[in-house]
Amino acid sequence: MTSAYQQLAARFQRISRFSHLGAIAGWDMHTMMAPGGSQARGEALAELSVLQHELLTDSKLGQWLEAAAQEDLNDIERANLNEMKRAWQQATLLPASLVEAKSIAGSRCEHAWRQQRPANDWQGFAANLKDVVRLSREEAQLRAEANGTSRYDALLDLFEPGMTSAKLDITFGELKSWLPDLLQRVVAKQSQHPLVQPQGPFAIGAQRDLGLSIMKTLGFDFQHGRLDVSAHPFCGGVPEDVRITTRYKDDHFLSAMMGVIHETGHARYEQNLPKTWRGQPVALARSTAVHESQSLFMEMQLGRSREFLQFILPQVTTLLGAQPALEAENFIRLTQQVKPGFIRVDADELSYPAHVILRYEIERALIEGEIEVEDIPALWDEKMQQSLGLDTRGNYRDGPMQDIHWTDGAFGYFPTYTLGAIYAAQLFQSVELAIPQLRDLLVQGELGAVFDWLQQNIWQHGSRFPTDQLLRNATGNTLDTSCFRRHLERRYLQA
Amino acid sequence: MTSAYQQLAARFQRISRFSHLGAIAGWDMHTMMAPGGSQARGEALAELSVLQHELLTDSKLGQWLEAAAQEDLNDIERANLNEMKRAWQQATLLPASLVEAKSIAGSRCEHAWRQQRPANDWQGFAANLKDVVRLSREEAQLRAEANGTSRYDALLDLFEPGMTSAKLDITFGELKSWLPDLLQRVVAKQSQHPLVQPQGPFAIGAQRDLGLSIMKTLGFDFQHGRLDVSAHPFCGGVPEDVRITTRYKDDHFLSAMMGVIHETGHARYEQNLPKTWRGQPVALARSTAVHESQSLFMEMQLGRSREFLQFILPQVTTLLGAQPALEAENFIRLTQQVKPGFIRVDADELSYPAHVILRYEIERALIEGEIEVEDIPALWDEKMQQSLGLDTRGNYRDGPMQDIHWTDGAFGYFPTYTLGAIYAAQLFQSVELAIPQLRDLLVQGELGAVFDWLQQNIWQHGSRFPTDQLLRNATGNTLDTSCFRRHLERRYLQA
Repeated sequence: MTSAYQQLAARFQRISRFSHLGAIAGWDMHTMMAPGGSQARGEALAELSVLQHELLTDSKLGQWLEAAAQEDLNDIERANLNEMKRAWQQATLLPASLVEAKSIAGSRCEHAWRQQRPANDWQGFAANLKDVVRLSREEAQLRAEANGTSRYDALLDLFEPGMTSAKLDITFGELKSWLPDLLQRVVAKQSQHPLVQPQGPFAIGAQRDLGLSIMKTLGFDFQHGRLDVSAHPFCGGVPEDVRITTRYKDDHFLSAMMGVIHETGHARYEQNLPKTWRGQPVALARSTAVHESQSLFMEMQLGRSREFLQFILPQVTTLLGAQPALEAENFIRLTQQVKPGFIRVDADELSYPAHVILRYEIERALIEGEIEVEDIPALWDEKMQQSLGLDTRGNYRDGPMQDIHWTDGAFGYFPTYTLGAIYAAQLFQSVELAIPQLRDLLVQGELGAVFDWLQQNIWQHGSRFPTDQLLRNATGNTLDTSCFRRHLERRYLQA
Repeated sequence: MTSAYQQLAARFQRISRFSHLGAIAGWDMHTMMAPGGSQARGEALAELSVLQHELLTDSKLGQWLEAAAQEDLNDIERANLNEMKRAWQQATLLPASLVEAKSIAGSRCEHAWRQQRPANDWQGFAANLKDVVRLSREEAQLRAEANGTSRYDALLDLFEPGMTSAKLDITFGELKSWLPDLLQRVVAKQSQHPLVQPQGPFAIGAQRDLGLSIMKTLGFDFQHGRLDVSAHPFCGGVPEDVRITTRYKDDHFLSAMMGVIHETGHARYEQNLPKTWRGQPVALARSTAVHESQSLFMEMQLGRSREFLQFILPQVTTLLGAQPALEAENFIRLTQQVKPGFIRVDADELSYPAHVILRYEIERALIEGEIEVEDIPALWDEKMQQSLGLDTRGNYRDGPMQDIHWTDGAFGYFPTYTLGAIYAAQLFQSVELAIPQLRDLLVQGELGAVFDWLQQNIWQHGSRFPTDQLLRNATGNTLDTSCFRRHLERRYLQA
């Protein structure tokens, strides 16, 4: 006889296969789709959302979940059951009509954004965004009632289970207490070393080859993934075929290169999720924040370290040609340059948290109904002025229109970037303790021991443990901003 | 109250949206997918097949179909209902387990074929193909019992409704009665004109640009489609975003160029299917054979005509450079060269029917259980020797392993190529009658009137009429080999 757990496993296997199709169609939408395909794609993905919702909210699931809880399960099955329950609870809260409406509104807003952003068309964008916000508030309300939390906390829980705005306020408060001063000191310190800027053009083909070469160094498995181009870099696809993207400018190569390193961090996590449990919720990445810790481990902790930069420099000069800006010390300073700017994805690790905290404060207020879409630009201008001293008035394209998250209704996502940065610093410190000769290995591009540590401590566990426990098992501690602070001070003040 | 017809329309709309995802994932599988993604993709597509099958065989559909037949429907709705019924009948015949098994076996066979073909590994290929044949026979048996036809005819009906092997035997018999002699005379005639062969290399980028330029000339809508590369050229995607592919060799450009013209014929049909009925079965292409008539109209009737070749020659020399082989008369002779060879997709229009008739005879015998997979190579060798005088012994890669159709279990598909060639000749003759100044227009690349005629007579009708009626409305006649014969004699003997 088939146990309730087995019934559940079969159902989630099926859901996972449909997610596969959605992931590929979603990747295609951002990389390959002809413009005229947008509406049909949006409708097809919305139909898929409805199906996934049906499969997940089927009344049998509630019964199976209850019955399976009484069955004799091993630890992993138990963890899998918890994740199933979580997914089921999240889905049963939403009516199918809301799921479909949100998917359609998100697709429409995101597609129009592609033309609106270059045109700096805030009014056009805001009209679509209002729909997305309205539907996201409906969603948040339903989730909040069920969770007994605030509306925003209910969305936050989707991206980092267990996280609350109360905890974020403390964590972000800590950062706000020392980051602005540190930022100022670093900018002052760096101003003493004039930088030689790289002189382009850098052929897109050569930049792509450089990205592929670094991906190889970082252990990306090309049997199970590929690199393409999109307006906004992302990591998509499925663990068996991970699709990362970057974007190229021919007068500048560092942004595309670091984008590739960042997305490779995501990709390695995906590619190394537990294969034996594939198709089950427990085989998925722990959370968006933990995912980001992997990309930032690769980009910030490892990729921008003096040692790694020394190792990859010959690849850079071989493919792009030698020039004064690419002499070792200047190359390192370029890559570690701290310079507050408009664009979050191009931000250095010292100003990045300001971008996130600004978005967190705005989106929380938006979801809680304290502000409306029309209020965003003024708040944006005010906070950018306060935190980074930048004037963003009238520049929507490099302001609230620069990101893709709100267009898709992914409110609650932004804080995970900075949580990821903090986790990454904690993980890297543990790697340093575990591998005493680490710095020497990095200079030689010998990264095997680092990846083994990540495989052992993070990748192979999928969603087996809650984030707090995963982190405690790996580092001996839960969320803690001190490693992040130490890392920043060491790299930017003491080097 | 929602009518039964409306219920059906909503259901088929939903099915169409899932087909969209399958079409994109299928395209991706052949163009973009990392090798390691194959198994997961096969499983995901199989799961989708099962879903589509469930949606189509739902017991409510039978009731709705019966009720809708009594409702007050206009002509188009009535035609749509007929197509719905056809789809439902075809689907209800097959158990979900067979649908899934066939999809998985097809994916596995096709994926392994990518390595097996270059390795000429017939044994490895045959092992997978046997599974596909076994499942296709099961399918054919179930369909044959329901249709009251032979097993093979039941499969044929999937690709050209109403077509039978009795009719094919007559039609192919006619071709066999005059084609071998014509072929021989043309080869003898052409041997009097020595050809100058193009000297490569032809840069892939320039070949791609040439393809894009010709697609533009042929009216391909780039807002609703794109051109990529795959091992075997195909036209996929969805009407809103048609994906065509070709394959490039750097020492030869004609094959890729003609491939693009061919697939553009398919693409224009798809892009111009009736937009107001999108998502309904009546908005789909009439049949595989009619689809092929559109690609062959574009490739053989129009694309290889002296007039069109004169028009595109400047595009060719601009992009690939001038050389003796690309002087007008030699270029036309190259493109119209008749030379029996191993590869079907590279075959000229005089030897092409021999490739098709050979496959037809083999696959019919295979499905009817008269032969087994092991018997294919010997039959292949014998028939290729008979019809085209070629020795194929031991050369599996350019023999039965050259095509992708059998790997996917698409038995009954091959005859549609030659049916399409015959239809295309009939259509082109009608275009000539309708547009007296046609030859002058072609030389000037003024193709608007030709496309208007196709739009009026073929594209806009989708599946509104049976093939026979569609053809009779457009040309005044049903399937008739005389136009094809006249076309070939005029182009190859009288020019």
